[in-house]
Amino acid sequence: MHSVLFTTRASSNGVLERDFTVGDVPGVLWSPASGSAHAPLVLMGHGGGLHKKTPALAARARATVTAHGFTVVAIDAPGHGDRPRTEEDERARADLKQAMAAGDTEQVASITVRYGTALAERAVPEWQATLDALQRLPEIGAEAPIGYGGGITLGTGIGIPLTASDPRIAAAVFGGGFVVRDALIEAARRITVPVQFLLPWDDEHVDRQSALALFDAFASTEKTLHANPGDHRTIRWAGLDDGFLARHLRRAETAPA
Amino acid sequence: MHSVLFTTRASSNGVLERDFTVGDVPGVLWSPASGSAHAPLVLMGHGGGLHKKTPALAARARATVTAHGFTVVAIDAPGHGDRPRTEEDERARADLKQAMAAGDTEQVASITVRYGTALAERAVPEWQATLDALQRLPEIGAEAPIGYGGGITLGTGIGIPLTASDPRIAAAVFGGGFVVRDALIEAARRITVPVQFLLPWDDEHVDRQSALALFDAFASTEKTLHANPGDHRTIRWAGLDDGFLARHLRRAETAPA
Repeated sequence: MHSVLFTTRASSNGVLERDFTVGDVPGVLWSPASGSAHAPLVLMGHGGGLHKKTPALAARARATVTAHGFTVVAIDAPGHGDRPRTEEDERARADLKQAMAAGDTEQVASITVRYGTALAERAVPEWQATLDALQRLPEIGAEAPIGYGGGITLGTGIGIPLTASDPRIAAAVFGGGFVVRDALIEAARRITVPVQFLLPWDDEHVDRQSALALFDAFASTEKTLHANPGDHRTIRWAGLDDGFLARHLRRAETAPA
Repeated sequence: MHSVLFTTRASSNGVLERDFTVGDVPGVLWSPASGSAHAPLVLMGHGGGLHKKTPALAARARATVTAHGFTVVAIDAPGHGDRPRTEEDERARADLKQAMAAGDTEQVASITVRYGTALAERAVPEWQATLDALQRLPEIGAEAPIGYGGGITLGTGIGIPLTASDPRIAAAVFGGGFVVRDALIEAARRITVPVQFLLPWDDEHVDRQSALALFDAFASTEKTLHANPGDHRTIRWAGLDDGFLARHLRRAETAPA
C-alpha cells in the first residue's frame, strides 16, 4: 500500500499545486491555497499522447479550484508524461504514427481500440491506488465526495471503466471524439451515477453513431448529452452546464452516509 | 394588413397578460407589467392537440417575462384552441384517434406527418402576419430582437419552417419527440441562426435517428443538442442552458443594425 509522496509545491492565484507520486505513478494535486478540508475531489484524465499538466487540463483544474473550492487530481496515464514507456507503448506509438502518416484511418482506429483497452486495464488500478492514498490524507479523507471530471478521448476511455468499477465516484463527465470499443459499452452499462456526456458533433475520423450508442448505454437515470459542432480539437462548447459536477458532489457531501 | 386587436388584459405577479386577435388568429401576449419598450420578443408554439395557454407553455412564458423582462407571444395553431376546425382538421383528428386506439403506430406516424405538414403550411403565414402586426405596436416596434422559444412536437414542426423563412428570428429553441418529415430536414438546412435542440432520448414511438438527423441538418455554426432520458411527456431536463435565448437576443439587441 503506497502513500502520497509530495515532491514539489507552488502556489499562484490562490491555487496550491503539488506534484506527488503514489508508488510509480506521478500525479498533481490542485487545491485552494486557503485549505480544503474534505472538499469534493475531482479526478481529471488527460487525452491520448498528452500528460497530467497539459495546459487545457491544468486550466480546467485551476478553474474548478477557484470556482468551487474543490481539489483536483490528475495522474499520468501509463506510458504518458513523466512515465517510462514499455515496449508495448513504444510499439503502439510507432504503429499509430505510421498509420496516421499513411492516412490509414481503419488502422488508426484498430490500434487506438487495442492500445486504449490495454491502457485502461493498466490505468484503472493505478487510479484506485491513487484514490486510496489520497483518502488517507487528513485534508481529503474518506468523506470527500469524488467525481470524475473527464477529458475526452483517453480520459474517457479510462474514466468509464474506472467509474464502472469504483463506487466512490459519485458523478462523472465523459466525452466523445474517439473510437468506441465494445468493452466501453459494457462498462457504461454498469454506470448508474449522474453522467454528463460531451460530444463533438463532427469528428471526421470517428463514428458518431458509436458515441451515441455509448451515451445510450449508461444506466444512469440522470444523464445529459451535450453536443456542439466541431471535432475534438476544434470544438467550442456553447451553453455548457459548468455546474454539473459541483451540483452532484455538493449533494453527495450533504447526503447522509 | 391586420392590426393587433387586444380583447382582454389581466395582471398578476408583475406579468401583464393580454389576449388579442390578428385577423382570425387569436393570440396572447405576456409582458412585464412595468413596461417593456422594445424588449426582446419570444415566440412560443404549443404542442399538437394543445393551445396557446396550455399550462406548461404559460408557465414558461411567465418565467421568461419575470427572469428576463422579455415579451412572449403565443398563438393558437390552425384547428387548435379557440379556432374553428376545418373538415381537414376534424378528419385528421378522427383518423389519429382511431389509429391510436388501434395501436397502429405506423398509421399514427403517417397521419402526424401529413397533418403536421398541412398545419405548418397554414401556420407560418399566420405567425408572420402576427409578427408584422406586433412590430407595428410602439412598445415592440421593428427594434425588438425576436427569438423562437420552442415547444416540442407541433411547436417545432411549425417553428422550423417559420425560422427558415423569416429572417427576423435571430435564435431558436426546438425540440424532438415527434416524427420528423423530410420537409423539416429541408427547412433545417436553411437555418443559420443559433439553435438549441432539446431531445427526449427515449421516445417509444419516435425514431431517435430522425431527430438526430434533424439536428445534424441545421446549417447554424452555433447549435447545441441537449438530450436527457425520458419521452416527450416524462422528460425532466437536467442542467439545461436556460439562458440560451436571453444571451442571443440581448446580443442581437446591442449589435449594430
